[in-house]
Amino acid sequence: MTNITKGLEGIVALETKISFIDGEKGILEYRGINIELLAEQSFDIVAYLLLHGEIPSMEDAHRFSKLLKTKRDIDAKTKSVLNLCNFNIEAMDALRTAVSHMSHCDPDLNDNSLDANLRKATRLIAKFPTIVAGFQRVREQKKLIEPDSELTHAGNFLYMLRGEKPNDVETRIMNADFVLSAEHELNASTFSTRVTVSTISDLHSAIISGLGTLKGPIHGGARLAVMNMISEIGTADKTEEYILHLIKNKQKIMGFGHRVYRTMDPRAKIFKKMAKELAEDNGDMNWYQIGEIMEEVITREIVVKKGKPIYPNVDFYAGIIYKYLNFPPKLATAIFAIGRISGWLAHCLEQYADNRLIRPRAKYIGEHNKRV
Amino acid sequence: MTNITKGLEGIVALETKISFIDGEKGILEYRGINIELLAEQSFDIVAYLLLHGEIPSMEDAHRFSKLLKTKRDIDAKTKSVLNLCNFNIEAMDALRTAVSHMSHCDPDLNDNSLDANLRKATRLIAKFPTIVAGFQRVREQKKLIEPDSELTHAGNFLYMLRGEKPNDVETRIMNADFVLSAEHELNASTFSTRVTVSTISDLHSAIISGLGTLKGPIHGGARLAVMNMISEIGTADKTEEYILHLIKNKQKIMGFGHRVYRTMDPRAKIFKKMAKELAEDNGDMNWYQIGEIMEEVITREIVVKKGKPIYPNVDFYAGIIYKYLNFPPKLATAIFAIGRISGWLAHCLEQYADNRLIRPRAKYIGEHNKRV
Repeated sequence: MTNITKGLEGIVALETKISFIDGEKGILEYRGINIELLAEQSFDIVAYLLLHGEIPSMEDAHRFSKLLKTKRDIDAKTKSVLNLCNFNIEAMDALRTAVSHMSHCDPDLNDNSLDANLRKATRLIAKFPTIVAGFQRVREQKKLIEPDSELTHAGNFLYMLRGEKPNDVETRIMNADFVLSAEHELNASTFSTRVTVSTISDLHSAIISGLGTLKGPIHGGARLAVMNMISEIGTADKTEEYILHLIKNKQKIMGFGHRVYRTMDPRAKIFKKMAKELAEDNGDMNWYQIGEIMEEVITREIVVKKGKPIYPNVDFYAGIIYKYLNFPPKLATAIFAIGRISGWLAHCLEQYADNRLIRPRAKYIGEHNKRV
Repeated sequence: MTNITKGLEGIVALETKISFIDGEKGILEYRGINIELLAEQSFDIVAYLLLHGEIPSMEDAHRFSKLLKTKRDIDAKTKSVLNLCNFNIEAMDALRTAVSHMSHCDPDLNDNSLDANLRKATRLIAKFPTIVAGFQRVREQKKLIEPDSELTHAGNFLYMLRGEKPNDVETRIMNADFVLSAEHELNASTFSTRVTVSTISDLHSAIISGLGTLKGPIHGGARLAVMNMISEIGTADKTEEYILHLIKNKQKIMGFGHRVYRTMDPRAKIFKKMAKELAEDNGDMNWYQIGEIMEEVITREIVVKKGKPIYPNVDFYAGIIYKYLNFPPKLATAIFAIGRISGWLAHCLEQYADNRLIRPRAKYIGEHNKRV
């Protein structure tokens, strides 16, 4: 056996045509298209791109969006699962349970063909926002809001969550969040979906692995942690002292640093602009300013002084955007998942199409030949 | 980046003190103890060994068994999740949903400390048989059977499933199945639990990833497939023709071959003896004879003629044992999980104790610089 590569860092586990990261230059492409060109595209188009490999024709885009709209409803049984929840849980826990339960009633249960999986994929993408919004409505003891087929994927999510139609800036930025969160090569949650698929298990099981893995605070759960940290800091004038204290005590700073990027995450750059736009639209720069000061202090104290590439990652300005959109922190990771599911599904289909069981080895470092 | 190692074959992902496999010699040790010495130990003792690293003292063993017995009950909310199921699903789907739901009500929700995780681990081990048996009772539209604290983990499972106390041979072999299924280094499901834990997600999420991954037919789902194949063959006299047909058509033969073993799986050897014992106890050698003939034909046609190391794996004689124990095939993988959860939990605790995010890379093989 070869040497140990802890965390599989730098190990190439498979080939993909779904996304490309240049961690040195800070480039991310979905299916060969730079995400800077995709941030303002509709999430439906980007989800189609990820699943099918190409930007859809006008006709296909229209058909796909219409299909997603007709599949937004969740059935009474899934709603009853939401009603059973303990309300201290994160939306992620409810989403994981609801998806697991939905699989029982899926019309393509136990059919692993590509056609069946594309149908399952469409239903899963369409229903994620309904489950997350539904969970929050139940949590607030409010009536569930039925999906509105006049609204886009992003606009409808905000509407189902709040019961009021969102404005254009909010809708556009929510859409961009779903797009920029959609895909990122073999991050831990995407990798976990492929490990599950690699035993030829079913698509719902794979997505559930993805959800459970995304939930962790050093992955998707970082957005929740960023929101909590920003709230704890409170006001821009207290930011520098707070961060210097973290640095001095060598504590982890949520939303900064990344396994792959050695420069600023290209998604963070776009999110930063959008956070500023939302701040201006809200007439309240406070959360944005906290973010800017954090970035300045960390650049000065860690990047410059220590020469370490600790830049804002995708979760940092996304967390600030979520503050402006007034999301409860317990929803943050699940909202990330509304975008990410499209990437997970693309990777699952790629894995099914050319599968090999993902089964590494461990090096045993314990005793031998012990007796009972 | 290095070369691609598809399926991560031979890649050493981490160090472990939990189990050791010698694939050439056909040796498997749990915590340094050969499984031949463990097969007749109680599952409780083996679960303790896996979790804590040592065989318990008499006193600790007694305390641990007692604790497991007091935690067998599932609450009304989890039962109601079972009642919502579509009865064409596998028990695995119900188990995955029930565990996801149970997490919502867990008294240590969101506590990732070792103490909290040991409490969660005990509850999960204790409740798995109750959920699986409960699902089957609901499916048969029969009353749920309450756990009987006079019975062992294995005996009580058979009792809750059937409503009648099992005989000693059955209980002993059910226990051995749980023990021999408990742990097997970085198999795909165990690896998936560690990927989930590596983001510092919670223990329930990790176990749910394990369940979804175990479900696949080229992993735990193989037992279900073996049961179905044996039923399809029907009688010993039809076995040779059936297998020769599979070989001629280069079809996969369920229950044979393994990524790691180049000789007979040491668990399969023990299961083979037990299958024979059960057959004799039942006064019906048919299923066992089908197994023996399959093994003979495959040895002759593949091992000898083609020089390929295709031997029975753990799932083969386990599937035959499940036939004698009269388990519905849709329960097979979930019964495997009743044993395997103890290994998953041990690996999760090991991962939490010295964590590094498991995040490999992919090699991008698509186009670049495409336009929208």
